[in-house]
Amino acid sequence: MALTIYDISKKAGVSIATVSRVLNGSDSVKASTREKVMKVIEKYDYTPNAYARGMGLHSLRTVGILCADSSDLYLAKAVYYLEQELHANGYESLLCCTGYDLADRQSYIRLILSKKVDSLILVGSHYVSSVDEENEIIREASKQVPVMLLNASYSYPNVYCTLCNDYASMFEATSSLIRAGIDDILYLYDSNSYSGTKKLSGYKAAMKSYKLADYAPYVHYYDGRTDQIEAITDFIQGIADRGTRFHGVIASDDPLAIGAIKYAQQNGLRIPEDLAVIGYNNSMLTACCMPELTSVDNRLENLTHQLVQTLIGVLSGQEMPTESVFSGKLIKRATTP
Amino acid sequence: MALTIYDISKKAGVSIATVSRVLNGSDSVKASTREKVMKVIEKYDYTPNAYARGMGLHSLRTVGILCADSSDLYLAKAVYYLEQELHANGYESLLCCTGYDLADRQSYIRLILSKKVDSLILVGSHYVSSVDEENEIIREASKQVPVMLLNASYSYPNVYCTLCNDYASMFEATSSLIRAGIDDILYLYDSNSYSGTKKLSGYKAAMKSYKLADYAPYVHYYDGRTDQIEAITDFIQGIADRGTRFHGVIASDDPLAIGAIKYAQQNGLRIPEDLAVIGYNNSMLTACCMPELTSVDNRLENLTHQLVQTLIGVLSGQEMPTESVFSGKLIKRATTP
Repeated sequence: MALTIYDISKKAGVSIATVSRVLNGSDSVKASTREKVMKVIEKYDYTPNAYARGMGLHSLRTVGILCADSSDLYLAKAVYYLEQELHANGYESLLCCTGYDLADRQSYIRLILSKKVDSLILVGSHYVSSVDEENEIIREASKQVPVMLLNASYSYPNVYCTLCNDYASMFEATSSLIRAGIDDILYLYDSNSYSGTKKLSGYKAAMKSYKLADYAPYVHYYDGRTDQIEAITDFIQGIADRGTRFHGVIASDDPLAIGAIKYAQQNGLRIPEDLAVIGYNNSMLTACCMPELTSVDNRLENLTHQLVQTLIGVLSGQEMPTESVFSGKLIKRATTP
Repeated sequence: MALTIYDISKKAGVSIATVSRVLNGSDSVKASTREKVMKVIEKYDYTPNAYARGMGLHSLRTVGILCADSSDLYLAKAVYYLEQELHANGYESLLCCTGYDLADRQSYIRLILSKKVDSLILVGSHYVSSVDEENEIIREASKQVPVMLLNASYSYPNVYCTLCNDYASMFEATSSLIRAGIDDILYLYDSNSYSGTKKLSGYKAAMKSYKLADYAPYVHYYDGRTDQIEAITDFIQGIADRGTRFHGVIASDDPLAIGAIKYAQQNGLRIPEDLAVIGYNNSMLTACCMPELTSVDNRLENLTHQLVQTLIGVLSGQEMPTESVFSGKLIKRATTP
């Protein structure tokens, strides 16, 4: 197998960025470092990827984007922003929608790497598993091209993360309801991904910080499809029917919050007087419902912009931050006091 | 340049499907036909694509999907269904979101063809232009792989179309309001694509058939983004403010109809008594608004299923219909009488 830029950096004992700078003829490399790198390159007869790709004509300046499900509002918007940014920077993109199954995700990553892309962008925190063996495919990919993670965190050479601080955002959203005098707050979520876990921790920490330690009966996992509002409404009705009383709902995704609004309307509850509702992602759904939905804006446009800036920097051999974190913002509309 | 299956079929004077059957060793080909095809194949030293692709390992059984904008609800859902269907049939997919610009669309089609896909699926009627020179890229692609069009119609060898009869669906939706006694019906649309034109014709034909010929002041083109509900609401408010009276709204896409519901609520109009509203595409938005939105279901799930069935048939050398047309269905909810 041919050597990668990763192998060269290991053998020369320098960073990948330094190898990249040498290959790009940058002036900012010390002569002795450049010599060390060039020796390894010559010894192993290494052909830099970008050059090898240039021979394939159409395959230059192409980035592979992977997301689990393009019909998810949030992921679709992320992909849209990424493509716009990449296009503005002269890159074309190839997208694979991999589903949530591990084996499928792996085979898709191999497929898109075989298409000679310059980088891989993994959209959404599902791509990083808490079981580290399952992340072998990320490590494998990072040896061929820079791997960019959107809304996930993974520390490894040639892996760059851009994310929103979901923990702090959810802590703030929950605290805002508690400060308004609402302490029986239902928490609805639909994913145990990295960001899903962070959001839930933020809710729990806020409840604890206000001494509302008994939140266990309020936390509910919805495992249906989020584009089926009726099913979500039934799910919330079921929680109420089994005797849980609540005057607030915080949801990890806007469609779950829309379900809560529908539940309130079915039961003649006034919003926000009898039930306050906060969604997450600040999607177009916030403007479709009545009253309009308060939601956490997790700065998707900033995230995608930063991710592409980082990527362009890495590809041109600059030293870039391996983790860029943005703060979310609660956008208050008519479903909260 | 290497010969394609299209060239072989022309030189042998048989259909592409027949060449494919010969290559697949099918029994259903007459001996004399088989001989004719094999002579051409031998004369030009033709290597069938599927075989050539098999050498590239990972590139086998991959379909390229192109759509204009993955953040559009309808296109995103179409892509999702297609990927599910393809995956169930053992195919992986690569997606490019090309935007609406002709030059970008062309360069993306060339990019994805360079990735050695087995077929190209063009999602949405924007890909077929009424200016036939702009369709050269489709003709070019069809000489390399079968080209599948979703919701567009184009007659050319190796091009297969699967679509909804948008004309008839819109005719029926409009007629249903007229029969309910509403004859001042605003028509809102946001695209002049093939299906956009068919929908508008359906509305006009219904208005004419009920002798409501003076519909010109009711037809309005919205050229903003459809994920900005407030801007749509303002747009409709502007039409009303300029003196147009209307008791019905029919929209070519659900977000435009949501804007009409918001307009009614801003102005204290009762739905459906003072204003009846019909959307199109039967998206998840129909369940997010209050009251829930009557909308035309254009059978996306059936369309995508049929498209993939046709594709699988074509790739395995069967003779398949070049055009498959489904009828849409008006799904009545609370915004119509």
